[in-house]
Amino acid sequence: MIQTLCIVGVGLIGGSLARDLRRLGRVREVVGVSRNAAHLERARELGIVDRFDTDVGRAVRDADMVVVAVPLGAMRAVFARMCDRLADGAVVTDVGSAKVAVIDAAREAFGGVPPWLVPGHPIAGNESSGVEAAMDGLFAGRRVILTPTQSSDPQAVARVHEMWRWAGAEVLSMDPAHHDEVLAATSHLPHMLAYTLVDVLGRMQDRVEIFRYAAGGFRDFTRIASSDPQMWHDICVANREALTEVLERFGADLSTLLEAVRGGDGEYLREVFTRAKALRDRYTQDNGT
Amino acid sequence: MIQTLCIVGVGLIGGSLARDLRRLGRVREVVGVSRNAAHLERARELGIVDRFDTDVGRAVRDADMVVVAVPLGAMRAVFARMCDRLADGAVVTDVGSAKVAVIDAAREAFGGVPPWLVPGHPIAGNESSGVEAAMDGLFAGRRVILTPTQSSDPQAVARVHEMWRWAGAEVLSMDPAHHDEVLAATSHLPHMLAYTLVDVLGRMQDRVEIFRYAAGGFRDFTRIASSDPQMWHDICVANREALTEVLERFGADLSTLLEAVRGGDGEYLREVFTRAKALRDRYTQDNGT
Repeated sequence: MIQTLCIVGVGLIGGSLARDLRRLGRVREVVGVSRNAAHLERARELGIVDRFDTDVGRAVRDADMVVVAVPLGAMRAVFARMCDRLADGAVVTDVGSAKVAVIDAAREAFGGVPPWLVPGHPIAGNESSGVEAAMDGLFAGRRVILTPTQSSDPQAVARVHEMWRWAGAEVLSMDPAHHDEVLAATSHLPHMLAYTLVDVLGRMQDRVEIFRYAAGGFRDFTRIASSDPQMWHDICVANREALTEVLERFGADLSTLLEAVRGGDGEYLREVFTRAKALRDRYTQDNGT
Repeated sequence: MIQTLCIVGVGLIGGSLARDLRRLGRVREVVGVSRNAAHLERARELGIVDRFDTDVGRAVRDADMVVVAVPLGAMRAVFARMCDRLADGAVVTDVGSAKVAVIDAAREAFGGVPPWLVPGHPIAGNESSGVEAAMDGLFAGRRVILTPTQSSDPQAVARVHEMWRWAGAEVLSMDPAHHDEVLAATSHLPHMLAYTLVDVLGRMQDRVEIFRYAAGGFRDFTRIASSDPQMWHDICVANREALTEVLERFGADLSTLLEAVRGGDGEYLREVFTRAKALRDRYTQDNGT
């Protein structure tokens, strides 16, 4: 049971977690924090938070669990504002999509990586954002990756683990740098491709026609290009190194494919497509979709 | 009403069209053609065709409507085999994803572009293929692009138009070369990106982990990488010029994005993401999804 849960950033992820824990009776009280009082008012109307505060330092005072669910670029400032304000025994976790950057931000804000900080990342969400998008069961059956540091208190890790299990997630641990490499490949790179594709098409002369004749495959493929630009800006900055590396790999492979298309190298094309289809089909089987 | 519909290539598209026209009572008899007799036997079991033949020339003899639904690389050979075998007044159409190549194939096989040939392309289908994937209503509400040539007989065009309307599609006309450019951008390029992405990830060292932590966005994004490799090989070869051009544009933009990520050029990233999101959201609104 969580006594007072403080959610800093009541958007899709923070709001959905609060909804689940309230619905399941795993939390006595939820305090929402945001810079925007109107958003917080809306979160209270929607029954997501019990009370709210626009001041992080004041809001975290009574919390035994603090979940920081703000864009990566705001992490350091949020951490700095909760410095010396946290209750004894409070545990802090976050939901950022890049973990090394969050740990660095904590080190800067707290003057070291605190034992009660348990960085985490729920592999959930969709292209929508904001408190209105928060929903029940968003994490059910999804994976949450925790990236505890060497300083992390095992009891703090256990409490964050338990919280996500309550929300129905499968919880795993991973080295922070490894997390960032894996996510750069499976999530950050696809977002870059989707954004770039839509942007390239949008700048073509016959753009209206282009979008008019786009089929279902295009809709699925570009769904993630509707994601929040600020959030993805922050992810690119925070996970710059790992993302640069996979972008380079992808760019090199795409160049080779381009030359194969240009030169009519059918054998190469068939090989790539066959290999990719086999992998994609296996992935689908393994994930039951 | 179609008296005898000959479907050459009873796969997802050809099979689904036959199912619809039979179900709606718009065809008296369906003849299936394939090189593979077992597939044809299965199509008859599934109630998709009334009878079948592995010989194109024999199968088209009685047909008043012939739909060629084979991979693009097989078009020319199929056309050649129906030469001088078609009934008087028969109309031939196809469903290929690149139209200039189909018209070129017809010109070579028939020694000119025949008035009774109406090239077409239903913007429908999914990543599955084969007769087992054929389904009712695949074309309902989808667009079919016809690319009649200067030689096309308006009455032949009208009959193909009517057939697709029966199947519930919205039918439009377009210049063949323009079709190929539009589809290169909206369909062929996304398939290249999805295939390349899955292939790049599949060749990374920690591939098992990579796929394990892939989220919903990845699943949607890579769905089209499960498409038939031979079909996509043929499309790349057939639409080489237009595809090369959009691949070059995309590659250039991706390089610029890579440099922005590497250099931490947040302003550029935010601009691209914001522009792309606005376009993608508008596209979604316009298409009611």
